[in-house]
Amino acid sequence: MRLYDYDASGNCFKVRLLLALLGTEYERVPVDIFAGDTLTPEFRRLNPARETPVLELDDGNVITQSNAILWYLAEGSRYLPQIAFERGEVVQWLSFEQERVMSGIGSARFRIVTGRDVEVVPTRLALGRTALETLERRLDWRRYLVGDRCSIADVSNYAYAHVARDAGYDMAEYPAVSRWLELVEAEPGFVNDLVPYPENARAGNSTSIYDG
Amino acid sequence: MRLYDYDASGNCFKVRLLLALLGTEYERVPVDIFAGDTLTPEFRRLNPARETPVLELDDGNVITQSNAILWYLAEGSRYLPQIAFERGEVVQWLSFEQERVMSGIGSARFRIVTGRDVEVVPTRLALGRTALETLERRLDWRRYLVGDRCSIADVSNYAYAHVARDAGYDMAEYPAVSRWLELVEAEPGFVNDLVPYPENARAGNSTSIYDG
Repeated sequence: MRLYDYDASGNCFKVRLLLALLGTEYERVPVDIFAGDTLTPEFRRLNPARETPVLELDDGNVITQSNAILWYLAEGSRYLPQIAFERGEVVQWLSFEQERVMSGIGSARFRIVTGRDVEVVPTRLALGRTALETLERRLDWRRYLVGDRCSIADVSNYAYAHVARDAGYDMAEYPAVSRWLELVEAEPGFVNDLVPYPENARAGNSTSIYDG
Repeated sequence: MRLYDYDASGNCFKVRLLLALLGTEYERVPVDIFAGDTLTPEFRRLNPARETPVLELDDGNVITQSNAILWYLAEGSRYLPQIAFERGEVVQWLSFEQERVMSGIGSARFRIVTGRDVEVVPTRLALGRTALETLERRLDWRRYLVGDRCSIADVSNYAYAHVARDAGYDMAEYPAVSRWLELVEAEPGFVNDLVPYPENARAGNSTSIYDG
């Protein structure tokens, strides 16, 4: 199994985190998005959308979209519930993550840190605030987002929620979210290998469709 | 089972379409978003995000997010494959739908038809064009998005793709997508009950966070 992966991307970090929790062996292929690695004909054949992460299976089949990769990897493990209603809830929180956590918190953080497209930052920050408020409301009365143990719903939402501070959010306003972040970090096998955006990700350097 | 539902919403239409294909009985609760029906305290208790659709189960449990509702309803049916890789692919195409079809085609169409936030239309149209191009590339060599039969990946992507013309896209440029739309429409039980946006959805009337 081979993961095409950008080390500063929260979407890629999600997948690395789950692989670590599962103890799954894989080959990591570093992709430097802002050096143009996703703009080659080879990468286009791998993923026409030119996005990371991409999971390439041993039979050559490919899965894209971070939350889809999480689902595929977690199937049959403790990180994906068996109960039908809870599985529906997992999809719900993966959709929420994509809609508000990544597109709100993640996208605002990327632009603030790199100085790109700063005109959209207020809208993204406002969207990210609704994400934190929704997480806070949910986690105020339960330990994990779905069921009574850590699932890919938590892993996915953790990826950008745990760096919300970088976008200027005051995490003291979200005590339940803060407790939950620590709970995810206490999972056996947890690693945090998300790195800061490098210099070449900053505005004025190469362009890219990257969004967080 | 009760579906809180807005008849002009593609996200709600997705769910109605799957329920029709499955032949599942349910109670439909009409929600007039632009008359303020999602802004009541009762609706907030049902879904704090104040979005439709919402599926309320007989035990009072609730699932939100259209693609999560599709997943829950399709589990165990012919509309959700059993093979692990194909299930991963379904999540991938549901994520794609949310990222580019709904946020591109659906969002552009909503704004063009209602005259709201017209300044963002060019960006949304460009995103929607990438969606149609990606679908065209995929469907040029296969009948359905995943596996060899119609799944919720098709149902979800159909909802906004079949009204792309309303946003000004020339569907003659996408022959494979056009064939696929007809294939979905040929599924036994298919119904199309998506209605045009009503007068009260137009700019200058009530405000809402609705996005397509």
